[in-house]
Amino acid sequence: MARWEPDAGPRLVRAALDLIGEQGYAATTVAQIAERAGLTRTTFFRHFADKREVLFAGQEVLGRLLADGIAGAPADATPLAAVAAALDAATAVFTAEQREYGPRLHAVIAENGELAERAAFKRASLRAAIADALRARGVGDPGAGLAAGLGVDAFYRAFERWCDLPAGPTYPELAREELAALRAAAAALG
Amino acid sequence: MARWEPDAGPRLVRAALDLIGEQGYAATTVAQIAERAGLTRTTFFRHFADKREVLFAGQEVLGRLLADGIAGAPADATPLAAVAAALDAATAVFTAEQREYGPRLHAVIAENGELAERAAFKRASLRAAIADALRARGVGDPGAGLAAGLGVDAFYRAFERWCDLPAGPTYPELAREELAALRAAAAALG
Repeated sequence: MARWEPDAGPRLVRAALDLIGEQGYAATTVAQIAERAGLTRTTFFRHFADKREVLFAGQEVLGRLLADGIAGAPADATPLAAVAAALDAATAVFTAEQREYGPRLHAVIAENGELAERAAFKRASLRAAIADALRARGVGDPGAGLAAGLGVDAFYRAFERWCDLPAGPTYPELAREELAALRAAAAALG
Repeated sequence: MARWEPDAGPRLVRAALDLIGEQGYAATTVAQIAERAGLTRTTFFRHFADKREVLFAGQEVLGRLLADGIAGAPADATPLAAVAAALDAATAVFTAEQREYGPRLHAVIAENGELAERAAFKRASLRAAIADALRARGVGDPGAGLAAGLGVDAFYRAFERWCDLPAGPTYPELAREELAALRAAAAALG
């Protein structure tokens, strides 16, 4: 019956992006995505709660990786140093395939209001996960939320640059650069 | 908004919050909200695009007020000083009625995933409106986005405190306090 499908998640993501590219988001069904991936609807719903979720694959894992990275930072690390360490650790796993997905995903989200809403919610959830991990280290407010906001901004700014530069720096290098730029901008707020 | 009906908007908001409080968000229809407010569905849709929008009444106006406030700040104001001036100007209109709505709105949004997604999107839109207004003043990136993020955080943090303190400071006073606290936290990031 239910077969072990080790790469079902990535296959479903690829199938979804292909179909949406061909026929648009609204016209694409979960059944079509599963079929294109050579899998069943049941397998789809074992991996994703709904059609929108397939486009945000890995976000939850990422939130956990970032939170773990912050928890594991040296005890004397500043909030922003802990965020930098977490970005390093969590994004070292980013693959070339994800770099190819990025621009396609952006294009789909930009054209659909429902997806834009979920994207904003995912971004806010990522920030909350980082802020909570900082608070668990004893960082107070509003510093925890602020450092988390900088971390999330660095994450997304680096992701855009990374997708644009197929032969450029690694993702962790770009994230570190963006975080440094945000830190400098914060110091210059006056 | 094709036509100006002086109190239709607030009446619809009040009716929506009352009905949602009585029977839940999912069970409440646009027709019921209009009827409770003594208005027609047509009038509802002149004011709000859908059922969710009635719970975010005034957000678009607020975005414009904040953007106008930033555009109108003195030419030599720092980005954060421009944000502070905009918060002062835009939130001076907040009424006691809005203070009463706040906690009820929070409760409804917290219980509904779709509303939480739209709330996150609205927050991101408000930030984008402020950042764009700062860029129009010549503020570069990532400073514009950062200052806008601090402004939006101050806005929501102050709103929560304002709703909790019926006899406390005015909203603009709280927003200024929160922005100062965020500015201090930004300077302390190290």
